Amino acid sequence: MNDAVKYLLDEQHLPRFWYNINADLPVPLDPVLHPGTQQPITADELSVIFPRGVIEQEMSTEREIEIPEPVREVLRQWRPSPLYRARQLEKALNTPAKIFYKYEGVSPTGSHKANSAIAQAFYNKVEGVKRITTETGAGQWGSSLALAGSFFDLEILVYMVKVSYHQKPYRRAFMETFGAQCIASPSDTTESGRAILAEHPDSNGSLGVAISEAVELAAQRDDTKYALGSVLNHVLLHQSVIGLEAQKQMEMADAYPDMVIGCTGGGSNFAGIAFPFLGEQLRGGRKVELIAVEPSACPTLTKGTFAYDFGDTAHLTPLCKMYTLGSSFMPPGFHTGGLRYHGMAPQISHLAKLGYITPRSYNQLECFAAGIQFAKAEGIIPAPEANHAVRAAIAEAEQCRETGEAKTILFNLSGHGHFDMQAYIDYLGGKLQDITYAEDEIAMALAGLPSIG
Amino acid sequence: MNDAVKYLLDEQHLPRFWYNINADLPVPLDPVLHPGTQQPITADELSVIFPRGVIEQEMSTEREIEIPEPVREVLRQWRPSPLYRARQLEKALNTPAKIFYKYEGVSPTGSHKANSAIAQAFYNKVEGVKRITTETGAGQWGSSLALAGSFFDLEILVYMVKVSYHQKPYRRAFMETFGAQCIASPSDTTESGRAILAEHPDSNGSLGVAISEAVELAAQRDDTKYALGSVLNHVLLHQSVIGLEAQKQMEMADAYPDMVIGCTGGGSNFAGIAFPFLGEQLRGGRKVELIAVEPSACPTLTKGTFAYDFGDTAHLTPLCKMYTLGSSFMPPGFHTGGLRYHGMAPQISHLAKLGYITPRSYNQLECFAAGIQFAKAEGIIPAPEANHAVRAAIAEAEQCRETGEAKTILFNLSGHGHFDMQAYIDYLGGKLQDITYAEDEIAMALAGLPSIG
Repeated sequence: MNDAVKYLLDEQHLPRFWYNINADLPVPLDPVLHPGTQQPITADELSVIFPRGVIEQEMSTEREIEIPEPVREVLRQWRPSPLYRARQLEKALNTPAKIFYKYEGVSPTGSHKANSAIAQAFYNKVEGVKRITTETGAGQWGSSLALAGSFFDLEILVYMVKVSYHQKPYRRAFMETFGAQCIASPSDTTESGRAILAEHPDSNGSLGVAISEAVELAAQRDDTKYALGSVLNHVLLHQSVIGLEAQKQMEMADAYPDMVIGCTGGGSNFAGIAFPFLGEQLRGGRKVELIAVEPSACPTLTKGTFAYDFGDTAHLTPLCKMYTLGSSFMPPGFHTGGLRYHGMAPQISHLAKLGYITPRSYNQLECFAAGIQFAKAEGIIPAPEANHAVRAAIAEAEQCRETGEAKTILFNLSGHGHFDMQAYIDYLGGKLQDITYAEDEIAMALAGLPSIG
Repeated sequence: MNDAVKYLLDEQHLPRFWYNINADLPVPLDPVLHPGTQQPITADELSVIFPRGVIEQEMSTEREIEIPEPVREVLRQWRPSPLYRARQLEKALNTPAKIFYKYEGVSPTGSHKANSAIAQAFYNKVEGVKRITTETGAGQWGSSLALAGSFFDLEILVYMVKVSYHQKPYRRAFMETFGAQCIASPSDTTESGRAILAEHPDSNGSLGVAISEAVELAAQRDDTKYALGSVLNHVLLHQSVIGLEAQKQMEMADAYPDMVIGCTGGGSNFAGIAFPFLGEQLRGGRKVELIAVEPSACPTLTKGTFAYDFGDTAHLTPLCKMYTLGSSFMPPGFHTGGLRYHGMAPQISHLAKLGYITPRSYNQLECFAAGIQFAKAEGIIPAPEANHAVRAAIAEAEQCRETGEAKTILFNLSGHGHFDMQAYIDYLGGKLQDITYAEDEIAMALAGLPSIG
């Protein structure tokens, strides 16, 4: 099938193991520190907010970690997800490049986020947890945890970043349809929320603030834990199914990527597709260029500092060594809620620092233009987050047109834009502008970084 | 794979022929009549608004009609669509029934409508048409034609029923993203629209009115044709890919349906899944119960009259023999825009009259409740239209629980509800009620039926 447009795998080919890049790191990660003592955090300390199953994964250096059958049972409803060859886009671009994309929008919640939500809900359920709190930006993670809560009969409480809460009422409704409760953050239901509101009554919110609210609540009750949708090792681990499937599917297509591209907010979808390929390389296999694409308005990898920082605004979370813009940085209210985070996954930060990952940033207007170009060729309207990956893939393919190289490009189309049409309405109506961050705000936020050791 | 949840077919297994039930009808269809002369309409007369390729199909009695390669080329981007075994729903219902559903929500526009839109755009393109006008209710058809227009480089003008236009801004944005123009109907851009507005300035619109506007415009210009998203033979023909694929997939599952269920507005998704099975039966194969489910508030098959009627309000379309509530009937503004049509596909009407199809109707509240029950079990939020099929499938499965019969139920999940979350918001917020039609309005509309021959 050399002219195929899609490569499907049967549910029997759903991976049985997650891939853990910690096993192949050339230099180990810096330890996660306790926010109070600034000493390496213990499993016991983490267990206040996370279930044991998740903590084990967070700290593991085993290369392969078995996916529990009840998790596979749920994942197989939409996984393996399809891999597409973007033949129409190639034609439209008149490029010799071969463009492939893995499409995670086939999940019931429309993005890759469900991959980790199902796993995390499972580990909470088997440990007797009754309720999970979380934050959500664009709403993709909150929807996914709502779905997982419905499948595993858990109460889900979602703090949704205020700007997205108002931009995206359909996402809220989606969560509520699955029985979850959704609160605009900052809210008056937590101390962290009230503190922000006292200082900034009109705050748009941020993922950092919403995390504080969710963690605060989880820490207060024994039957309640917290779940994070990105950044941490275990989340990136759960997303490895994307790349593991893509490896098999690229083989079906008789191709191997010269580069793998993903958008990065906290980093989970990028790591999901990229790490299995990088793992091959680190074990002596073929070299792959990994391109992490972020919004220019929240340029964590391209303009941030590699340092220990908190994951949230109120400094309730542990400290991670990562690229960060400073935990007090409030990204402007641009239309990619999923990428409005001050930090970056420690694993990605570490590998970027070591030179294995190339960061890149784009402005939102060029990303929307790329998304529409993609939609007109391939039929799928991407989520605004995914438009960043599309933009980079198109740029690379155009580069090939100039040089005549027939490179093989693989990118992750992390989700569809069905719940983001307001952003497209604004873009098509000429109401969007390129938003830049305030240089001095980042400088101030970085000046506030904790001094460690 | 006896415990599989989904049955996938490779793009190589995309059908090469559409199935035409006209070849197997025990009694032929009554002819379509010219609206002026009331004589059987000719291909030449139809060519004012339709391309020749489509007209040939409309009138054909060939059993198999080849799908042109450029159409297959596009369809394979999402087809064959998956067939699911609803194992989680079966468990939740504690039923011995086996429930299967064919999921058409995987198309880029989220419903089965794209199947015919691509075909119709192709036939228009090869005949040099520049512009296609159409109507849309829920927006699924308009979105699909917008997508098709983008693929085949055709200008698309969509008259969207006003109540849906306001309920569903994201659907409009979707069409506009693909470059289509979208106008709320009734509008002041046509005589038909202006006439309605003069009499009912606050009209919600209806499919019948929107069809009049689109047809009026197409009839005026040589480079412009009209496309209909349901009702007519050629549309039902294009949808037969659903049932043809489902036949292969049921075989993979080692099962055969005792009943096939679909929701019916104009009838295309129901016919798409049901006719290939009915064809087997008509040619001496196994008997299958076919259940057509419509909203109680627009009860065409259950309360309508089998008679010649116009397809539109302004009486510009040909006359079809069908179940109808009268072309002047204005369905109330309930939340399933795709089912708010006064008539029913002549092929379905004919087969219902002959006793091969069992009509059934449900109110909207019980349909939304069924949709949410389905979503919580299977993860997919159905379009409100599809909830009618879900409701019937659940009713049948519950019946099996009572009788202990292990029947095999197949239904068509014609689309997802991502663009219908406002309806779910209203339902969850207790703002929806069961709406009934006005008995006297139907009586009046039926009294206005044309008297033929």
